[in-house]
Amino acid sequence: MTDSKISVAIIGTGDIGRGWAALCVAAGWPVALFDRESASLESAPAEIAERAGHLVSLDRAVPDDVEHGVRSLKIARSLLQACEDAQWIIESAHEDLMTKQKLFEAFESVAPNAKIVTSSSTALLPKDISARCRRPDRCLIAHPLNPPELIPLVEVVPGPQTDATTVEVLKAWLRLLKRIPVTIKKAAPGFIAGRIAAAVWREAIDMVLTGVIDVDDLDRAVSVGPALGWAAAGPHLTYHLAAGKKGVTGFLQGLLGTFEGLWASAPTWSKLDPQQQRQLTQAIEKAYEGQIDQIRKARDRRLAGILKGLEQSRQG
Amino acid sequence: MTDSKISVAIIGTGDIGRGWAALCVAAGWPVALFDRESASLESAPAEIAERAGHLVSLDRAVPDDVEHGVRSLKIARSLLQACEDAQWIIESAHEDLMTKQKLFEAFESVAPNAKIVTSSSTALLPKDISARCRRPDRCLIAHPLNPPELIPLVEVVPGPQTDATTVEVLKAWLRLLKRIPVTIKKAAPGFIAGRIAAAVWREAIDMVLTGVIDVDDLDRAVSVGPALGWAAAGPHLTYHLAAGKKGVTGFLQGLLGTFEGLWASAPTWSKLDPQQQRQLTQAIEKAYEGQIDQIRKARDRRLAGILKGLEQSRQG
Repeated sequence: MTDSKISVAIIGTGDIGRGWAALCVAAGWPVALFDRESASLESAPAEIAERAGHLVSLDRAVPDDVEHGVRSLKIARSLLQACEDAQWIIESAHEDLMTKQKLFEAFESVAPNAKIVTSSSTALLPKDISARCRRPDRCLIAHPLNPPELIPLVEVVPGPQTDATTVEVLKAWLRLLKRIPVTIKKAAPGFIAGRIAAAVWREAIDMVLTGVIDVDDLDRAVSVGPALGWAAAGPHLTYHLAAGKKGVTGFLQGLLGTFEGLWASAPTWSKLDPQQQRQLTQAIEKAYEGQIDQIRKARDRRLAGILKGLEQSRQG
Repeated sequence: MTDSKISVAIIGTGDIGRGWAALCVAAGWPVALFDRESASLESAPAEIAERAGHLVSLDRAVPDDVEHGVRSLKIARSLLQACEDAQWIIESAHEDLMTKQKLFEAFESVAPNAKIVTSSSTALLPKDISARCRRPDRCLIAHPLNPPELIPLVEVVPGPQTDATTVEVLKAWLRLLKRIPVTIKKAAPGFIAGRIAAAVWREAIDMVLTGVIDVDDLDRAVSVGPALGWAAAGPHLTYHLAAGKKGVTGFLQGLLGTFEGLWASAPTWSKLDPQQQRQLTQAIEKAYEGQIDQIRKARDRRLAGILKGLEQSRQG
């Protein structure tokens, strides 16, 4: 087991950085943290230990690994101290190109031995992030969803100069962490998950703002309806199965007209004005007022339950 | 238990009608079937019994109820014979307004005692379907997803003349069938699930046709990524939780710009030309060639596993 433990440096201790850290710590991996904002850096280890421990109570990690990982968790005093011994640098700084470019440039001197350097960016492109690097071959994007310690998908987005071996090694490491890497062939903003999520949220916002449905009913409908279906079979497979033996060809024959009608009437706005933002945030806050920690814990329990149910169904 | 068994007539024995039938039969309810296409009608009971039995092996139904339901399943020789004793008429004919209007008009004479008449329509509006009825008060849409016996969501869409009691009774019946009804406040084509699904599929098609990702990778990414997240918390709640204690207001401050960029660059096409249809169906058929029954059964096992995992997480 020892040689399957990768030493990790996590640069940026916001929510996504902490999620990566909780995931690696829960696997018993040695993690070093650094953030230029010392308040965030100081408060990170307690939350990371709590999130990693929570994975034990959700049956997604084992106590020995978590204890080992928590003991090995280090706060670094500098970028150099965080990176000098790391095999994998995970950059999770703010979503700002200049910030990320400077960090990736700095990794050249502070992390000469790191095998892989990933950015958690959700919308920037790998070629831009590594534009100032002399070693873009080891750089790429590994984009997790929130919370990274529970959602298995990691979008792997190589840049034009990323080495093929880098991609393979990263995917192997992600699998050690029980993540499911999916490689994007052509990098475009939003990758896969971001584009799908943006499309869904635009419809979901539109329906609330136009009074078609209330926030909590919309969320419930998506959860127990299409999302459940897609969790068991993605969109293309869903329609391939929907027309029985006729497959997707039969489905298109029967229902393409309906889809074309829905596409033609779909919302096309791309901005929310301040009044719409207020209307939306008020509706969401009213639907879920108070107790955000309890709601989050209940969501995490559901996520863990779904993952366990899926795993059991695959063994059956 | 006896008085909680509702007698049902299912008109139209395509895939959705058979799914409704499997669901009702698995609850031990008496079901009468009718379809003008006698070939479909004749082949329906065997498939319905098999699908209801499959629910037992998936731990979603108990053998006694299924046996009772299968024994009570009747093929009717006419619309009248199907409807005369039914408390609930479920219309699942082809998605064609004239067909549905005529059926709903016919229900006035053949089903005078039915308490509720629902259409399974996915894109027509209740006011149009019941336009020729003298009793629109008992008519509305109850739209399930595929497969109806496994996905809990049923979209309940009252028309302007639907009685409030009708809505409440239907929701109570759906809950007896362990469905989760969600009422749409303002009927618009696609309701909730259809609009969300159309938005997702347009993105998913666009990504395949433009070479961003392969069909199976796209499906896998959606399944183990955003869909899993939404199955645990709908889109609005997901973003409310994503910014920690700052809630959705904090989320918008940090990421509205990113979403606005994605909305502005989202695909806007609303037609698939014949060549694109071929490219799409070939890519999907290549990804999932052969063994559609096995793929469907595996999907159903995953669905049942997810449902069980969710139920267990709620008990915990």
